[in-house]
Amino acid sequence: MAITLAIIAEQLGAEFDGDPSVVITGLAPLETAKAGEVSFYQDPRYQGALTKTKASAILLMPSEKAQCPVSTLLVSEPLKAFAQLAVMFDRTPQYKPGIHQSVATGKDCTIPASASIGAHSVLGDNVVLGENVCIEPGCYVGDRAVLGAGTRLRPHASVYHDVQLGERVTVHTGAVIGSDGFGNVKTADGWQKIPQLGGVIIGDDSDIGTNTTIDRGTLVDTRIGRGVKIDNLVQIAHNVVIGDHTAIAACVAVAGSTTIGKHCMIAGTAGITGHISICDNVILTGMAMVTKSITTPGVYSSGTGFMDNKSWRRNAARFRQLDKWIKQLQQLLKERA
Amino acid sequence: MAITLAIIAEQLGAEFDGDPSVVITGLAPLETAKAGEVSFYQDPRYQGALTKTKASAILLMPSEKAQCPVSTLLVSEPLKAFAQLAVMFDRTPQYKPGIHQSVATGKDCTIPASASIGAHSVLGDNVVLGENVCIEPGCYVGDRAVLGAGTRLRPHASVYHDVQLGERVTVHTGAVIGSDGFGNVKTADGWQKIPQLGGVIIGDDSDIGTNTTIDRGTLVDTRIGRGVKIDNLVQIAHNVVIGDHTAIAACVAVAGSTTIGKHCMIAGTAGITGHISICDNVILTGMAMVTKSITTPGVYSSGTGFMDNKSWRRNAARFRQLDKWIKQLQQLLKERA
Amino acid sequence: MAITLAIIAEQLGAEFDGDPSVVITGLAPLETAKAGEVSFYQDPRYQGALTKTKASAILLMPSEKAQCPVSTLLVSEPLKAFAQLAVMFDRTPQYKPGIHQSVATGKDCTIPASASIGAHSVLGDNVVLGENVCIEPGCYVGDRAVLGAGTRLRPHASVYHDVQLGERVTVHTGAVIGSDGFGNVKTADGWQKIPQLGGVIIGDDSDIGTNTTIDRGTLVDTRIGRGVKIDNLVQIAHNVVIGDHTAIAACVAVAGSTTIGKHCMIAGTAGITGHISICDNVILTGMAMVTKSITTPGVYSSGTGFMDNKSWRRNAARFRQLDKWIKQLQQLLKERA
Repeated sequence: MAITLAIIAEQLGAEFDGDPSVVITGLAPLETAKAGEVSFYQDPRYQGALTKTKASAILLMPSEKAQCPVSTLLVSEPLKAFAQLAVMFDRTPQYKPGIHQSVATGKDCTIPASASIGAHSVLGDNVVLGENVCIEPGCYVGDRAVLGAGTRLRPHASVYHDVQLGERVTVHTGAVIGSDGFGNVKTADGWQKIPQLGGVIIGDDSDIGTNTTIDRGTLVDTRIGRGVKIDNLVQIAHNVVIGDHTAIAACVAVAGSTTIGKHCMIAGTAGITGHISICDNVILTGMAMVTKSITTPGVYSSGTGFMDNKSWRRNAARFRQLDKWIKQLQQLLKERA
Repeated sequence: MAITLAIIAEQLGAEFDGDPSVVITGLAPLETAKAGEVSFYQDPRYQGALTKTKASAILLMPSEKAQCPVSTLLVSEPLKAFAQLAVMFDRTPQYKPGIHQSVATGKDCTIPASASIGAHSVLGDNVVLGENVCIEPGCYVGDRAVLGAGTRLRPHASVYHDVQLGERVTVHTGAVIGSDGFGNVKTADGWQKIPQLGGVIIGDDSDIGTNTTIDRGTLVDTRIGRGVKIDNLVQIAHNVVIGDHTAIAACVAVAGSTTIGKHCMIAGTAGITGHISICDNVILTGMAMVTKSITTPGVYSSGTGFMDNKSWRRNAARFRQLDKWIKQLQQLLKERA
Repeated sequence: MAITLAIIAEQLGAEFDGDPSVVITGLAPLETAKAGEVSFYQDPRYQGALTKTKASAILLMPSEKAQCPVSTLLVSEPLKAFAQLAVMFDRTPQYKPGIHQSVATGKDCTIPASASIGAHSVLGDNVVLGENVCIEPGCYVGDRAVLGAGTRLRPHASVYHDVQLGERVTVHTGAVIGSDGFGNVKTADGWQKIPQLGGVIIGDDSDIGTNTTIDRGTLVDTRIGRGVKIDNLVQIAHNVVIGDHTAIAACVAVAGSTTIGKHCMIAGTAGITGHISICDNVILTGMAMVTKSITTPGVYSSGTGFMDNKSWRRNAARFRQLDKWIKQLQQLLKERA
């Protein structure tokens, strides 16, 4: 990939100050960028790095131009522009339309000529693929699954029967959409499985991370909204509903029948119990343990900060009797009064 | 799927009150069920929904019949009956006996004519399959693995060499049974791997969830009992023993050489340390951190409830010095005495 | 496998006392070992088991010889010697060089005759394999990936484009190396994906556990050092750097752009936030929540110990108002002064 600054400026609609014929061959962080590379500046914490950068040009806001020692590409949202620019330098393999000879396909599938299906993938019966769908090698798509236009399954992704994916959805490697929810009823003979008859519906422009699992609903569908971004190793249980544009970081677990609103941000390793409701615009910090519904937007947390093990042992031991000690304190306060 | 209420009543052994010729085409929750659908009522929290339901018939206990505005199917355990009924409406693909032409099979395998092996699956040498075993597409089964009658591997499941699965076991997509335990010995040159010579034995009627990992033992087998239900993204380390009918929800981690009793219920994201023992009938709540053996049945918990981030910061800061403060309180109490 | 004690002693360089012609067919723990089996003794907690063992011979330190009731194999590091011995008894399938006929290979790959590629694996273009690389069935290797000599991918492992694995690396089943980091920029239209242009570099002799995910970097590479041991279901986010010989147990999450030093030991289910730095020789206990950089070697912890649910509810309720109570205590202390 080699492209002049003139073309980059044009593509991004950026106001450019510098030599337009300079050829750019890569992108890099401010600190390590060298001649032939472009970087960006948006977060003031990196101001020091900006003033010393060796990049050929920097994407930044007009108000910051004076601080930049090299050529400038002025834009209102530098990180957003950088994301656009990065698309041009992305070396992720692109597949040509066509079906690899090793693909096993069921009956009555709808596969447009623009779709690509990679080696050793397996499709069930009555699968419907939209235009430009890309199923990479080793995927599984169950009966009657519907994949909207431009949707992409990375290698080894699984989409079960009756699951519906919108347009431009990405399902990353090893993610499983539509496996059985964890539904069992206790009987005298042990646990009896409750068949999971619902499906999963995922809205347009959502991403599902690597090895993430989204279970199908028991009677109704598990529903993921539009523009939802889910990271790796996340568990979304049956009947869960997630609102548009919510982002969920890695290793989060959402238990069954819980509803999460729109524009929420859930940090990694948070755990959310079942049968509750979280309103729009909630932020959960890492490892937050949510056991009740949240009805007011805001930032919520739980847990205790880490410390050296010796101090922690002492404090945690006191926590075991916290109620007793507070009662004694209350007694002292009462006596004083 | 279309079936009359008369047939449903007969299949479930339910006492029926209503028009037996009504045709049922689906199941639904009380709130959303409409004509042609059956629902169930067991949890009193849904009493309001029951009195307003539009379902064609409701499975419920004889004692609740008076409250039901529509046809009734009377049974002693409505949820259990509903689970039986749901089997009839389950659209999970069923595979015919036979071996797909793309399957790679090793030497001297025992594969009965009733078994089904899907596209692109791979079997090692000396694999033994029972009657009606179903291996869905893209699975891996290692040398000498034994799968009991009626056991089913969902797509992309992996069962390593020398693993033994009982009858009617389900291994969900991406689950891995028998990968190496995390055994390393520290040496002057760094970590040296300890080969993991044991296997994994899983009892009849157990389910292993999507992308769950169960490691093989170091010298003895990792053992999962009968009727054990394990959800998605669970880690069971080497040498662990889990008793019959224990249920483990998603994202739980059980460290090496720990024993968990029978009929336990472990909520999601709990963490259980290694080399301990948990007795029968223990319930752990979500995110419980278990660091010592539990010898008395009951419910156990840890962690702190979530709260708004500002309050949490204040309280968590106090926790860091809890021992100091309690000591000062003790001093006050002593002075008063 | 059947081998005499004489040969075992010779292979391990152990001083032997007993009948050298005894044939050994397996390894077992002290408690259950019987004639024909070898065990080892290193941890004094098992002294009782040593004195009652029925094994044919025991690997132990010369200083412990007097306590052993059976034949002895004297070595300075018994567990290390046992790990060496276990290699001989390991029944993990070994693959012959060669490429299975079902493998789909891209253009211009470098595949030495000593390499083995199992059924239904898929390689992209320009993949480079070192001598004796073993790719087991159903793996995916992306364009330009480089696998050093002796590296092994277990079934269903995925290695994305431009990822570099050192020599003798093991990637376990379902692990994914080089999937996209979770990079999104918020815009008026929702989250916009930031293409992840970096790769992943993994040093020699590192192991990556089952279903573990290691994301590629945004602009620079995610880097895992030499001799790093990572267990199952671990998440390593984009741009993370992990030092040599660090060990990470199951279900740990490391967020983006964090650096972890050398010789650290991270216990299971710990969570480490993004953009921080952890120095060499840090030990984190299970479920530790690390939210700030650690600059001093040592053991760190967080959380609260588990207890019966009733006590926990009381104490956790008090924690919610801990700051208020401590302030009242401060007032009492002030009044006394």
